[in-house]
Amino acid sequence: MSASSDQGVTAAAGFEAAGVAVGLKSTGNKDVAIVVNRGPLKAGAAVFTSNRAKANPIIWSQQAISDGVVEAVVLNSGGANCFTGSFGFQTTHQTAEKAGELLGVSPGDVIVCSTGLIGTGDEVFRAKVLEGVTQGVAALSADGGVAASEAIMTTDSKAKRAVVARDGWTIGGMAKGAGMLAPGLATMLVVITTDAVLEASELDAALREATAVSFDRLDSDGCMSTNDQVTLLASGASGIRPDADAFGAALTEVCADLARQLQADAEGASHDITIQVVHAASVADAVEVGRSVARNNLFKAAIFGNDPNWGRVLAAIGTTDAEFDPYDVDVWMNGVRVCTAGGPDAPREAVDLTPRATLLVIDLKVGDDEATILTNDLTHDYVHENSAYSS
Amino acid sequence: MSASSDQGVTAAAGFEAAGVAVGLKSTGNKDVAIVVNRGPLKAGAAVFTSNRAKANPIIWSQQAISDGVVEAVVLNSGGANCFTGSFGFQTTHQTAEKAGELLGVSPGDVIVCSTGLIGTGDEVFRAKVLEGVTQGVAALSADGGVAASEAIMTTDSKAKRAVVARDGWTIGGMAKGAGMLAPGLATMLVVITTDAVLEASELDAALREATAVSFDRLDSDGCMSTNDQVTLLASGASGIRPDADAFGAALTEVCADLARQLQADAEGASHDITIQVVHAASVADAVEVGRSVARNNLFKAAIFGNDPNWGRVLAAIGTTDAEFDPYDVDVWMNGVRVCTAGGPDAPREAVDLTPRATLLVIDLKVGDDEATILTNDLTHDYVHENSAYSS
Repeated sequence: MSASSDQGVTAAAGFEAAGVAVGLKSTGNKDVAIVVNRGPLKAGAAVFTSNRAKANPIIWSQQAISDGVVEAVVLNSGGANCFTGSFGFQTTHQTAEKAGELLGVSPGDVIVCSTGLIGTGDEVFRAKVLEGVTQGVAALSADGGVAASEAIMTTDSKAKRAVVARDGWTIGGMAKGAGMLAPGLATMLVVITTDAVLEASELDAALREATAVSFDRLDSDGCMSTNDQVTLLASGASGIRPDADAFGAALTEVCADLARQLQADAEGASHDITIQVVHAASVADAVEVGRSVARNNLFKAAIFGNDPNWGRVLAAIGTTDAEFDPYDVDVWMNGVRVCTAGGPDAPREAVDLTPRATLLVIDLKVGDDEATILTNDLTHDYVHENSAYSS
Repeated sequence: MSASSDQGVTAAAGFEAAGVAVGLKSTGNKDVAIVVNRGPLKAGAAVFTSNRAKANPIIWSQQAISDGVVEAVVLNSGGANCFTGSFGFQTTHQTAEKAGELLGVSPGDVIVCSTGLIGTGDEVFRAKVLEGVTQGVAALSADGGVAASEAIMTTDSKAKRAVVARDGWTIGGMAKGAGMLAPGLATMLVVITTDAVLEASELDAALREATAVSFDRLDSDGCMSTNDQVTLLASGASGIRPDADAFGAALTEVCADLARQLQADAEGASHDITIQVVHAASVADAVEVGRSVARNNLFKAAIFGNDPNWGRVLAAIGTTDAEFDPYDVDVWMNGVRVCTAGGPDAPREAVDLTPRATLLVIDLKVGDDEATILTNDLTHDYVHENSAYSS
């Protein structure tokens, strides 16, 4: 069972965290977070955006994670440090060096994450981030998980944390993300910590499995970020080595919980849409079909208007290569079968789309596999939030 | 040169057309069109949506076009006759039979097109369409091109016609389309007529070449229709057999003119965005890169807000497999270079995005090929039009 918690990344033993405000955000809100692993283990794994346009912190962190040792993660909001040239990369490098110096660890074991406007990363940005490292290290505490989760927010309306406790060991995490939510791996900034005893290779395998069925199934607006990463740290402080399957299941639970929180807070959304594709010939087919609907603006606008426009669902899935007969598909909306075998079924009036939670089931009738994709509707507020200012 | 004309499909000699109102539209506007080829040639070619979810008229017309003989095209707005089962297919069949009977031609040489809400195609719909054929045949005239172009409108704010006249022969056409505008082939209903002397195989080759660089480069909202088709008819009434290249160039001009009219009338749009991808390694790469931007909601919302957010351009193109170095790309907006070689260039304030016509140039710096994609911005009105009612 998932337990709600105010701790996030400091729920597991062996971690300290902090969130501080150094003026990267014009609002004065917290904008630099730091998470430190006090051990005894210093194992880590991470997954990164598959976008070829990668921010400087991604390029740095992909190197830093390669030895499976992570001492700390430094994250800033208020600037993506992406497409900021060699100056921007040096800023990321200096961030890791500053944290390493203050913590007495190797800079190569410090992961760096940034989020905010692409192209932001000048001298002022650098000075503030470095000041944030100094203040953050000074503010580290064993209950700093809340402050850290607040410091990584951008257009998020609330901080996102999740904790799963098992017999003697715990996994906790925090996430930020409200736009550019689409798969590629990750799709947001996430830090997850555990006090279980696991090696880096075990963490890596478990993290890839968990993100593949959680964050990778979230496709809010079809736009893939340049800065996404999910980092998992193990301190071993519990002294317990869990069964791999039990750990994987708990980790998936934390990831799925955070993914749901990201969906629920997506920019401007008025519906959280769960797309279940069932009786597919393969999981890959089910994902492809679900994603084609999740990225169809006409379908998403119809849901905003509480219109059970199943024709747009069929028009969307017809663009895929998945195995199915378009004239033998059933479509259900919020429990009502609106289309069966290539024709209309229950009248539109029978479907109530006013609740925020929306369930779309697409029955392909060809196999035994299935997948669930999470998305949101396309609303006036989405357009407003993404046109009224740069983000 | 493209000439504006009030004739459209009846600009070329040898054609008659009509548009009538039979109550398929609740507004009382014209909703059934018919275009008849009076010969002496009865050659035709067509391209169809590549969506696997195909409307009944598409399934019918793909058969009807196979012998290269087309006597007439019957089109209705006010109902897509898609996912309406075998009853819907019989409606299409009866439409062709009715037209064949009244015109004294084989039903197998009658192309049928429908547009409107998916799932619409009941007994009432059938009766009205058949009545429309009767009224339409009675109203046929050599200057019926205007009425026909009006009868195929759905959410279009204006009728769309284009004519190109050459030395002794003419090509004219009409189009409808304002939403579900994305490639696949076609993306709308289009009928083009010519009095040139050309065989069906020549028409087919010319039509595929012309649509590939016109309608297929229009990607207004990324949503592919179930009903799109472009039909080209030749009457041979001019007695002139044009050079293949000259005919192809004129046909491309008509198609490009109609495509621009479709873009300019896209649902809710406030910007017509031309995306030029230059110095690509191949045309396919250029198209892929351009399309990735055309389908990026964050970029499209930024343009609506007159925000030259080039970071969203790079984030979009980074998701493609095209050959280029993301850190050596230049981006120009309305003549201002806002990003060069992976870093910011001119300040955002230097770019004026207030005109409706918007030019985005992406210089990939790897080759000599290029392509242009046409799209629109993502606006409040787009969301409104596609959520406030079923269409």
